[in-house]
Amino acid sequence: MQDKEFQVGRASIQFPEGPRIIGRASVVGKKEGEGPLGDCFDVIEPDPMVGCENWEDAESALQKETADLAIEHAGLVRSEVRYLFSGDLLGQLIATSFGTVDLEIPVFGLYGACSTAGEALCLGAMIVEAGYADYIMAMASSHFASAEKQFRFPLEYGNQRPLSASWTVTGCGAFLLGRQGGHVRISGITPGKIVDMGLKDSMNMGACMAPAACDTICRNFEDFDRRPEDYDKIITGDLGVVGQKILLDFMKSNGYDISDRHMDCGIEIFDRDSQDTHAGGSGCGCSAAVLAGYILPKLESREWRRVLFIPTGALLSSTSFNEGKSVPGIAHGVVLERC
Amino acid sequence: MQDKEFQVGRASIQFPEGPRIIGRASVVGKKEGEGPLGDCFDVIEPDPMVGCENWEDAESALQKETADLAIEHAGLVRSEVRYLFSGDLLGQLIATSFGTVDLEIPVFGLYGACSTAGEALCLGAMIVEAGYADYIMAMASSHFASAEKQFRFPLEYGNQRPLSASWTVTGCGAFLLGRQGGHVRISGITPGKIVDMGLKDSMNMGACMAPAACDTICRNFEDFDRRPEDYDKIITGDLGVVGQKILLDFMKSNGYDISDRHMDCGIEIFDRDSQDTHAGGSGCGCSAAVLAGYILPKLESREWRRVLFIPTGALLSSTSFNEGKSVPGIAHGVVLERC
Repeated sequence: MQDKEFQVGRASIQFPEGPRIIGRASVVGKKEGEGPLGDCFDVIEPDPMVGCENWEDAESALQKETADLAIEHAGLVRSEVRYLFSGDLLGQLIATSFGTVDLEIPVFGLYGACSTAGEALCLGAMIVEAGYADYIMAMASSHFASAEKQFRFPLEYGNQRPLSASWTVTGCGAFLLGRQGGHVRISGITPGKIVDMGLKDSMNMGACMAPAACDTICRNFEDFDRRPEDYDKIITGDLGVVGQKILLDFMKSNGYDISDRHMDCGIEIFDRDSQDTHAGGSGCGCSAAVLAGYILPKLESREWRRVLFIPTGALLSSTSFNEGKSVPGIAHGVVLERC
Repeated sequence: MQDKEFQVGRASIQFPEGPRIIGRASVVGKKEGEGPLGDCFDVIEPDPMVGCENWEDAESALQKETADLAIEHAGLVRSEVRYLFSGDLLGQLIATSFGTVDLEIPVFGLYGACSTAGEALCLGAMIVEAGYADYIMAMASSHFASAEKQFRFPLEYGNQRPLSASWTVTGCGAFLLGRQGGHVRISGITPGKIVDMGLKDSMNMGACMAPAACDTICRNFEDFDRRPEDYDKIITGDLGVVGQKILLDFMKSNGYDISDRHMDCGIEIFDRDSQDTHAGGSGCGCSAAVLAGYILPKLESREWRRVLFIPTGALLSSTSFNEGKSVPGIAHGVVLERC
């Protein structure tokens, strides 16, 4: 029986040692490679089908490629990874199921919409820190075309998109966690609860997710007794420009000004003017690839010392949308620190 | 930094103390209530819509009702439950998202097809045993009509079903885990890997899942250095009569005869002759409700002392099926012991 040194506040966990991120990899599509962060990613896949016959298989191929690259970067082999925490946006997680079967690693399939990278890191960090595994892998992917097919319209239909809509990132990020090595540790987590403000616009998911992001960030501040200035950056997943504005307003109404240190992976990954991506990038692969390719290197180089990373998810399906349901949000917080 | 006392073998975890199951609840539909285990469940909902306007909302209502009942049975209130591990079969887990939002508990959304109850118990047990939470809830649900709509045909179509097909259980099971109290503990887990034997028949999911069940059971025996006779019962989730036969054959070819102690929740929950359910019951709610209503009471009454519980999942979506993909399986093992 252990004591409760891990638990802080209502929902957060602090890690005395902090599992280390000992390997990371990002693989993205052509459009992401042409964006402002293009140079940051490990691999840019020129073929949107990734050599496969359909979009879902293409996304599976992204997962497999990213997983193997991350394992290689960590200096491990597949059989040394005890558990895999992975997910995607597709119904019944088929990108994950078919993408990870060859790894032969026991897998926990996760669904947190675009917050899945955060969910995977939260769970993986707890499992490694407690000694349940020497090494685990956390991974999340999305693919523009498989997501459009899943949630919106066939690409061939050529529908118009409102300016509040986001552009699903084709990409995958994978992370190896271990107890030694690496330069960045997960020092704490704040798993999020579902927040439903009754918003129903699936073409404005930033607005749907902003309240959940606000809830998790405020919870993190409260649980750890911190202020915005305790973080070099506070980085959400894919709120986009519409959601960012709402988040900053919500945070101010809660007494916190994070406008000087807020960053959103969805805003960073595309050039809004030249890439026609409207509110910004989205999808589980967005925050996962940006974490692997851009955020972690900034921590490794000591440009940033401590970052709050909050992937954000909009919980809807085409069924729930067609039934007129709202789009609840969820956001999981991960505190990353330079060792 | 902790030692590795938790890790046994390639994939399993042993718990020195073992988190206790301190509350449990099961809510099922009318057909399940008329089956052989009808008297075991806490609540039998006579209305398949559970007072809602659509099947998905009905499943959400099942989750909410079961969660509150399990929390009540544990003598807790919602705010004492630190984390929730829950999932269902629907695309983007909408039964879970809309069913658990009112609980206001930080949630980890899980997808393991019909193995989700096992996935939730594995993760929840690790989190409680390590001291990350005093109390967590693990939950899984399914609904016959929402699943038929998701995976097969509209009910109104009245399609014929082959004898190898299973009948998705309308039901939900929820479990509160804590470190003290209760009469049953989780003494170990064996998280499973995805096993793909190339089978493609979505109307014979028992056959698709049996190899994964075999893999997890053999892994459990090997990791814990046990034989079948070390368990009073070895209980799979929803293999049905076709999958059971395959599992027993596979186990024999691996040198284990488990035929005298194997039980399958899907076979038990319906009367095959009178209820026209063909191969048996299935769905995440099947193993979850049978665990809550039937298996745990047998342990509490000391009729059984140690049980290996292995919910089984078939990983497919209507998209992957239509693309001609195989149906891989996954199975997560949970060792339950009378304290």
